[in-house]
Amino acid sequence: MSTQEDCSPTFLVPTPSFEGDFVVNEVLSLESGEVLAYPTLHYAMYGHLNQSRDNAVLVCHALSGSAQVATWWPQLFAPGGLLNLECDCVIGINIFGSCYGSTGPSSTDPDTGSPYGPTFPLINVRDIVHAQALLMEALGIAKLKLAIGASIGGMQVLEWAIHYPERIARAISIGVAPLGAMGLGLNHLQRQAIQLDAAWKGGYYSPDQQPHAGLALARSLGIISYKSVELFEQRFARKPNRNGENPWISKAAGQNGRFDVAGFLDYQGEKFNDRFDANSYICITRTMDTFDPVRAHESPYSAYGRIQAHLTLVGISTDWLFPPEDIRSLGAIIKAAGARCDYREMASLQGHDAFLAEPEQLVRLLTPVFE
Amino acid sequence: MSTQEDCSPTFLVPTPSFEGDFVVNEVLSLESGEVLAYPTLHYAMYGHLNQSRDNAVLVCHALSGSAQVATWWPQLFAPGGLLNLECDCVIGINIFGSCYGSTGPSSTDPDTGSPYGPTFPLINVRDIVHAQALLMEALGIAKLKLAIGASIGGMQVLEWAIHYPERIARAISIGVAPLGAMGLGLNHLQRQAIQLDAAWKGGYYSPDQQPHAGLALARSLGIISYKSVELFEQRFARKPNRNGENPWISKAAGQNGRFDVAGFLDYQGEKFNDRFDANSYICITRTMDTFDPVRAHESPYSAYGRIQAHLTLVGISTDWLFPPEDIRSLGAIIKAAGARCDYREMASLQGHDAFLAEPEQLVRLLTPVFE
Repeated sequence: MSTQEDCSPTFLVPTPSFEGDFVVNEVLSLESGEVLAYPTLHYAMYGHLNQSRDNAVLVCHALSGSAQVATWWPQLFAPGGLLNLECDCVIGINIFGSCYGSTGPSSTDPDTGSPYGPTFPLINVRDIVHAQALLMEALGIAKLKLAIGASIGGMQVLEWAIHYPERIARAISIGVAPLGAMGLGLNHLQRQAIQLDAAWKGGYYSPDQQPHAGLALARSLGIISYKSVELFEQRFARKPNRNGENPWISKAAGQNGRFDVAGFLDYQGEKFNDRFDANSYICITRTMDTFDPVRAHESPYSAYGRIQAHLTLVGISTDWLFPPEDIRSLGAIIKAAGARCDYREMASLQGHDAFLAEPEQLVRLLTPVFE
Repeated sequence: MSTQEDCSPTFLVPTPSFEGDFVVNEVLSLESGEVLAYPTLHYAMYGHLNQSRDNAVLVCHALSGSAQVATWWPQLFAPGGLLNLECDCVIGINIFGSCYGSTGPSSTDPDTGSPYGPTFPLINVRDIVHAQALLMEALGIAKLKLAIGASIGGMQVLEWAIHYPERIARAISIGVAPLGAMGLGLNHLQRQAIQLDAAWKGGYYSPDQQPHAGLALARSLGIISYKSVELFEQRFARKPNRNGENPWISKAAGQNGRFDVAGFLDYQGEKFNDRFDANSYICITRTMDTFDPVRAHESPYSAYGRIQAHLTLVGISTDWLFPPEDIRSLGAIIKAAGARCDYREMASLQGHDAFLAEPEQLVRLLTPVFE
C-alpha cells in the first residue's frame, strides 16, 4: 500500500542473503472450501539463521508489497531500527494471490495448464499463514522470534498468534482489525472499477492487455482510503494541478483542468499499472475483506485466548480505513480473553499509510516493547 | 444527494402552486469565459407571493435535487417546520447543468442544433445565482426573505449573500465550504468512473445508451462520501449481503458473495441510473469543485464584507466531505470581515447527508434563528 514519497534511507539497505521459491508439496485445502494444488511461496531472507534457528523474524507484507522487505520497509533495518541483521534472520514471504512470485491469478492452474485468471480461488489470511508455517517447518524454524506486519501484513501476524500459539514469541500487528463497513465498501468499489474497464473481459485479459484504466482508478481510490483528510488538505488544499492546468476554465469536450489532488491521484494510479496485476488486486482485496480471526472459533474468547505470544497492536490516529478505535477495541477483547496484549498509537496525519510514511515514529513507538 | 431511506412525512406534502420555465432572454457570460445563450431555468413555486412580494423564500437544491423542493425536503413544510405556506412563497429553481428541466448537457445547443453533451460549458455557482437573480427580477421580487440550501444549495446561498447583498434578508447555508482536497479527489474519481465506461464515448452517448455502470459506480462513491464511517458501521458492520450471498466462499469466475454494505452501494448506484444523466453528473460535480466565493474578489474580507444578510452556517459533526471545522473556520472569517454570521452544528452520525436524513434535527437547530 506504499506511496513512499518521502523516504530515502541514508544507510546501506541490505540485500537478501537468499531469495527463492518454496513449493508446498501438497494440495492445500482452503478456508473457502476450494483447494490450491502444490502452490509456490516466493520468499527472501536477510541475515542468517543461527545454529539453534531461534532468531527468525517474519515480516509480513501489505497489499502491494513483496518478499523483499528491505525494498518497501528499509528503515526498519536502519541502525537503531527494529531489525538487526547481526543477530536477526529476517524473512519476507510473498502472499498467495500476489504477482510478486508466489502462486496467484497469473500462475498456471495445474488442472488446466492455463493461468488461473479470475478462477483463482478465494484466499483467506489463514490459508496464507498455514502455508507460511509449512515453510517455517521446512526451514527448521520451530518458533519465530517475532512476526511483524501492517495492514494485510498485520492480519497475518494475528492469525499466526492465534493459530500457532506455541510457534511465535512476539507479535506486532499494525493498523489492522477486521475491516469495517466503510473499508468493505471502499474495497468493493475498487473491484467494481477494475471490472468496469472494457479490457477486463471477465478477468480473462491477456497479460499484455491489462485493464489499466480500471486498475488505475482502483488504486487511486485505494490511495484515498490510505490517506487522511487532514494530510490531503495540508498537501494539496485547493491548488490547481502543478503542470499548469486551470480547473476554472472549460476545454474542448468538457475536459477541465485538474486540481493538484486529482493530478496526484491519477499519477499514483498510472504508476501502479507498471507493477501490479488486476486479478491480483481483486484477489488480495477479497483476502483483506474476509479476514475475521474469530470466524473459525466458537467465540472471540476462544480465538484470542489461544494467543501465547506477547502481542502489540498499533493504531494510527488518522486512519479511517482501520480506525484506531477498532484496533483499541480489538486489543481490549484480546486482553479480556486472557492474552498479553498492549495497544500503542501513532499520532500521524498520514492516515493508514503512516506505517510506510513515518517509519521512524513507528520504530520509536515500538522500541520500548523490546526493552 | 439524497438517499432518503428513513423519512416518510406524516403530513400533507404540498404540491407546487406553479411549475414552469423561465427563459433568460440574453446570452449569459459565464465565469469560465464561455457563454450560455438564452438558457432556461425550470422552477417551482409553493404558496403565493403577497402584494408587496416580500415573502419569497428561495430553497436551493443539491447535486441530484430538483425545483420540486417538497419532494426532496418535505419535512421543512411540516407544521412547526421552517417553511409556512400561509405566509411564505417557497421557490425552487433547478440549476444549470442538471437534468431536471433547466438548461444542461442534454439540452439543445442553439449553435449546433444538437445536444450540448460534453461540450456543455463549465458552470460556476455564481453563474447559477446570476440567472436566479434575473428570474427574481422577472417575478418582481426585490428582496428574498430567506435563501436556504445545503451542499451545492448552500454554495448558492453564500453566493447570493455576497453577490446580491441588498437583495437577501436572511441566508442559511448548510454543510458547505469551498471543497477541500479530499472532496476534490473524490469528485475527480467519480468523473473518472463515468469516463471509464465503454458506453461513455467521450460524452457523446445517446440518451438511451447511458454509461450506466460508470454512473452507478460514481454514485456509489458519492454515497460513500455523503455518509460517515460510524453510520456505515452501525448499519452494516461486517454483515453479509441481505440476499443471502456468502462472502466467504468462491463462486465461478472469481465472483464472491458481497457484504451488506456492497449490496447497498450497488443498489444505490443502479437506482440512480433511473433518474440522472452522466454528463449532468460530471457537469455539476465540476460546479461543486470550482466553488470559491473569494476568487472573484481581492481578499476574503472584501468578498465576505459585502454580506448584509443575517447568515447562518450549519456544520455536520461527522461530515468528512465538508468537515465541520472548515465550516466553522469559514464562519470565523466571515465574522472577521464584519458580516453577521452564526455557526450551528448538527450532531449526527449521518455524515454530509444529515440535512436530508435528519431534517427534524435541522429544523430544531434552525428554529431559534428566526426568533
